[in-house]
Amino acid sequence: MIYDAAIIGTGPAGISAALNLKIHEKNFIWLGSRQLSEKISKAERISNYPGFFSVTGKELTDAFTQQISQMQIEITESMVNSVLPFDGHYALMAGENFYEAQTVILATGTAFTAALQQETDWLGKGVSYCATCDGGLYRDKTIAVICGNARFEHEARYLAELAKTVYFFPEYPNASDLSENTIKPSQKPAAVEGEQRVTGLRLKDGTLLPVDGVFCLRDSVTLSALLPNLQMQENHIAVDRRMATNLAGCFAAGDCTGRPYQYTKSVGEGNVAAHSAIEYLASL
Amino acid sequence: MIYDAAIIGTGPAGISAALNLKIHEKNFIWLGSRQLSEKISKAERISNYPGFFSVTGKELTDAFTQQISQMQIEITESMVNSVLPFDGHYALMAGENFYEAQTVILATGTAFTAALQQETDWLGKGVSYCATCDGGLYRDKTIAVICGNARFEHEARYLAELAKTVYFFPEYPNASDLSENTIKPSQKPAAVEGEQRVTGLRLKDGTLLPVDGVFCLRDSVTLSALLPNLQMQENHIAVDRRMATNLAGCFAAGDCTGRPYQYTKSVGEGNVAAHSAIEYLASL
Repeated sequence: MIYDAAIIGTGPAGISAALNLKIHEKNFIWLGSRQLSEKISKAERISNYPGFFSVTGKELTDAFTQQISQMQIEITESMVNSVLPFDGHYALMAGENFYEAQTVILATGTAFTAALQQETDWLGKGVSYCATCDGGLYRDKTIAVICGNARFEHEARYLAELAKTVYFFPEYPNASDLSENTIKPSQKPAAVEGEQRVTGLRLKDGTLLPVDGVFCLRDSVTLSALLPNLQMQENHIAVDRRMATNLAGCFAAGDCTGRPYQYTKSVGEGNVAAHSAIEYLASL
Repeated sequence: MIYDAAIIGTGPAGISAALNLKIHEKNFIWLGSRQLSEKISKAERISNYPGFFSVTGKELTDAFTQQISQMQIEITESMVNSVLPFDGHYALMAGENFYEAQTVILATGTAFTAALQQETDWLGKGVSYCATCDGGLYRDKTIAVICGNARFEHEARYLAELAKTVYFFPEYPNASDLSENTIKPSQKPAAVEGEQRVTGLRLKDGTLLPVDGVFCLRDSVTLSALLPNLQMQENHIAVDRRMATNLAGCFAAGDCTGRPYQYTKSVGEGNVAAHSAIEYLASL
């Protein structure tokens, strides 16, 4: 089945896009976390979102969650690893699953953690974003696991069960030690190195750890890895006033399109992106 | 006193801009109706505004009104007749009042009633948007009064007290007859005609009513009359992704910048326009 649309991301831009696609009775898949945006749910007080005065991030998240549920919109909990133009539409790889959609709405937020140097150069040659998909390839090998969020720690633990040695780089406080075969270096990772395929991970102090693979478990894949031909403007996705990217049928909304990083801007852009996608579908 | 900003319009774009200017402690004047947007308050059900499921227009308006009041933001009830670039900032004429501001945020909505043909050509030469300002000039004369909203009927009545004869064109149902010297033609007005100054009003059926003046009492002045050098794109204000117009320090947001006509788009754009105005103020 080819969906009318795939929305990537469950922050305010994705939510706003989903509400509009649902009202317009489009058949879409919405990929991301059911926790919605951590940036919002952890916000102390929000006063500039029209309609809510001095609301906590949790209250606003609850209002969004309730609305999504009342409108019977489903979220598929999955991280999208790649989006490929495919036969006039798009093919999405998300974990072990494969989806097809006529249009894509990128609402991925801003990845506040930068990718490692050369990370995307070695993608598929030792760099992986998916423990479930690629873990089996590293049985009894030495790997590095960069873990951007405590939510992914169970995947890191799964990798530690398979691998001989794991260099573990949690990017959040109070991370576990995973297992006896886990080493937590004090230095941060800087760059992926390789020959034909990954051979090592260079740390910020210059140390080279010899590894067979590097797993990057993050909330979102860097956009250059996600959709290689997507036109960027500085660090953001280049869009026009209709929220159209340079790729036909691909739209973007929210923090990934640039500043100001504001919930209100994001919902506005999600709304416009959905309407542009609907217009594009009508033109097919 | 020169304000940091003037916001024109109290629909969702204006509201969103005002919340952000207030939080950033800018000194601004906000001109429009305290009833906020009639388009919203009369909406039956709204489901695609993130955070509110199946809310009535009145409930959403109440939420906005409460937030504005809790944040102690004032609305100055006034219709802006003209905005003029003046000595590096802007001068605004609103009824009998005069305001100065470094930046202007146009959030005027879409005037769904088109202007009359040649209306703006005769502005100040027989065409007026302000009964209080110009009424006295038409004592014992014959005038036409186009009244776009029942809220302005008292101004039409005031004009009927001064003028000898009034041709009255209410654009809403159940309008009063005003006075004995009032004539309500059944045809709609089409064009303003003149020589040196206004001489008549041409109706849709071709009839020419000889008049000395034409008062257009509407919720908003047509944008071409409001700010003559403002660049338009088809019927909307041309803006970039920062919501900047072609005039330095002048931003626009909401329906006046184009489709989709959506509350959510409007609040997003109001947010961005406010942040752009704040950035512009910092650069001065």
